[in-house]
Amino acid sequence: MSAPTNAPLGDLRVVEVVAFIAAPLGGMTLAQLGADVIRIDPIGGNIDYRRWPLAPSGDSLYWTALNKGKRSVAIDLRRPEGQEIAAALITAGTPGDGGGILLTNLPASGWMGHEALSRRRDDLISLRLTGSSDGTGAVDYTVNCAAGFPMATGPGGAPVNHVLPAWDVAAGLYLATGLLSAERVRARTGRGQEVGLALSDVAIATAANLGYLAEVQVNDTVRQPMGNELYGAFGRDFETAEGRRIMLVAISNRQWRAIGKATGLAEKLAMIGPMMEVDLDDEGGRYAARHAIAAVLAPWFAARRLEEVRAAFEGSGVLWGPYQDFGQLLREDPRCSPANPMFQSVEQPGVGPVLMPASPLSIAGRAPPRAAPPLGGQTDEVLAELLGLSAAAIGRLHDGGVVADAAGR
Amino acid sequence: MSAPTNAPLGDLRVVEVVAFIAAPLGGMTLAQLGADVIRIDPIGGNIDYRRWPLAPSGDSLYWTALNKGKRSVAIDLRRPEGQEIAAALITAGTPGDGGGILLTNLPASGWMGHEALSRRRDDLISLRLTGSSDGTGAVDYTVNCAAGFPMATGPGGAPVNHVLPAWDVAAGLYLATGLLSAERVRARTGRGQEVGLALSDVAIATAANLGYLAEVQVNDTVRQPMGNELYGAFGRDFETAEGRRIMLVAISNRQWRAIGKATGLAEKLAMIGPMMEVDLDDEGGRYAARHAIAAVLAPWFAARRLEEVRAAFEGSGVLWGPYQDFGQLLREDPRCSPANPMFQSVEQPGVGPVLMPASPLSIAGRAPPRAAPPLGGQTDEVLAELLGLSAAAIGRLHDGGVVADAAGR
Repeated sequence: MSAPTNAPLGDLRVVEVVAFIAAPLGGMTLAQLGADVIRIDPIGGNIDYRRWPLAPSGDSLYWTALNKGKRSVAIDLRRPEGQEIAAALITAGTPGDGGGILLTNLPASGWMGHEALSRRRDDLISLRLTGSSDGTGAVDYTVNCAAGFPMATGPGGAPVNHVLPAWDVAAGLYLATGLLSAERVRARTGRGQEVGLALSDVAIATAANLGYLAEVQVNDTVRQPMGNELYGAFGRDFETAEGRRIMLVAISNRQWRAIGKATGLAEKLAMIGPMMEVDLDDEGGRYAARHAIAAVLAPWFAARRLEEVRAAFEGSGVLWGPYQDFGQLLREDPRCSPANPMFQSVEQPGVGPVLMPASPLSIAGRAPPRAAPPLGGQTDEVLAELLGLSAAAIGRLHDGGVVADAAGR
Repeated sequence: MSAPTNAPLGDLRVVEVVAFIAAPLGGMTLAQLGADVIRIDPIGGNIDYRRWPLAPSGDSLYWTALNKGKRSVAIDLRRPEGQEIAAALITAGTPGDGGGILLTNLPASGWMGHEALSRRRDDLISLRLTGSSDGTGAVDYTVNCAAGFPMATGPGGAPVNHVLPAWDVAAGLYLATGLLSAERVRARTGRGQEVGLALSDVAIATAANLGYLAEVQVNDTVRQPMGNELYGAFGRDFETAEGRRIMLVAISNRQWRAIGKATGLAEKLAMIGPMMEVDLDDEGGRYAARHAIAAVLAPWFAARRLEEVRAAFEGSGVLWGPYQDFGQLLREDPRCSPANPMFQSVEQPGVGPVLMPASPLSIAGRAPPRAAPPLGGQTDEVLAELLGLSAAAIGRLHDGGVVADAAGR
């Protein structure tokens, strides 16, 4: 299924040589906005092709989730003939056609280097994700541990890694932003360029952008872990009668007053101000008095089941949410169902029907959710379309083992 | 300081009416690529203006970090005259000039609605961030608890919130991507549009994009917390002789063999294959045998100080990193210093010199790090430039309390 003809990026073509999360997610983000994203893989798949979790068929739920809506071409990239074909695909076309864009997380050397490729197409745009800014290898986990956040996460005593590969996700979205920025320059000047992004820079820049580094530098204060409490405002988790947990937050005064009203505890909460000598109409005051606030609220939650909490907070303006594991999210949350226009149930070959998201951006011409391709599924189609190869020429490449189709041949 | 004249987004002008993290970060991302980003705030500041942490001066380290490189205009937005000025700033200019772009996380109604504004400029682009896709309010914390990740984070027993506001960060970058996509459409067709993004959709789409939802739907498996261990590969934290911790990861076989070589434990590690009946040249096999692998490696780390570990791993191809709190990151990591071309020391008015990042995207014409503006610091300049108001007319607005400058008048 193609993207709609009015898709925002409908005239862009991006060729990827990628693996893992960040770079494939960057390409997928563009595909969800209508770009023709062609992922080139070695025959048999790249290193991420069988990453866990796997479906009963052996197909990777990870790989299929991260490569939705792309076309797949399988090439023997160790052989010069294969490298020649890959380079020709990356640089196919002529200025103004929206092609000539490479996205990769492989090293910038040899046939894949920007210089070598731009000799074939001088308006080439290369986006290149690297690990650490000091030139060493790095992945999300080895960047994350150094970026400060795990030491400020959890109850304290030991660092806690977040499970979300947040730096990969952010890097993928930075790559999409960088690609569109470079393409915007090219549309105006005709000039291509190489754009770099180090995963470690994404993490460390974010620590700075959120003020954590200035807190050290200016205040000589290092953020400490404080469990599920918010810093600088009132917010924390509470347990319900049946042992479920919810997160409750008040940032604005309106949200704060909504809690008192919806729980019927406004009068008791108001006693905390003079008792703790704080101004409860101030975020900082509520933060300072957070343990007293929690002490008043905890019995209210402990006496109610989640559904009673939900009913009490409905339409109240209280800012809250239930904790849900991935099972509860999929099975119980209507936002995670085809009732949400972002989602559709789509048949993923090798996997079965899955609830599949489009781009979370609601934009005219957003592509509907589309399955990931089978590995090599569009090899012949893309060789014919981009390189003008005849069926006979393509057949010879298959016979020689230079390219493969979805059957791996 | 202006952005370089060859900045990728040097001809774009974005007007923001925003607060908190996601939308301001989206705007800042564009400012770092050279866009003229004008943040409109109420006189005295929006609800996020004094958010913690604060510098000794009372200025917010949070606000200044998230609004770097923007211009600031302060307007009394409760008054019709103020709303008229804000609407005029948002819609100033004519098609083709790169203006007419609004970024906001306020409700799409009244004078700020897309329809009302596009009557003033019909190629208007509005980017609008909302909380939950069901129309209720939501912030990062109340989206995060429902998105599955806290229930899979930490040692188990209770959900653990990550401290990084990851959904805000991702949403900010989605907004940047969406804005460039819509602007690309406008450059080709002349048509503006309203683009929406719900924070809850960012989180739930990501849970799907990483395969967590398919794991439930296809395999009936809900990802469980497993501390600092990786899922599906070998990776976990280890303690050093002096009680520091490091993260060690092997995804590829090359990385796995590098661990054996650098620690001198290759022979012992090889015994684990037959002992645990797994193939250690397979990611899944290493995952299955992870406890045995950790048992062999732990004494090696426990016998060495961090600097000895660093020396042993230098140039070895081992994928690892030290845990660092925000203090150690700022004070000890050369990647987090002016030695990294992304960073410069910049004087932030009201705060002092801070280590400030440019965009992590290395792209021609990337703007150097620039301080956040004082609130209202560019009120007069922007009113004159965009609306052509005379000094006398601007003076009357100040006298009437409709606008204010950096002195709050």
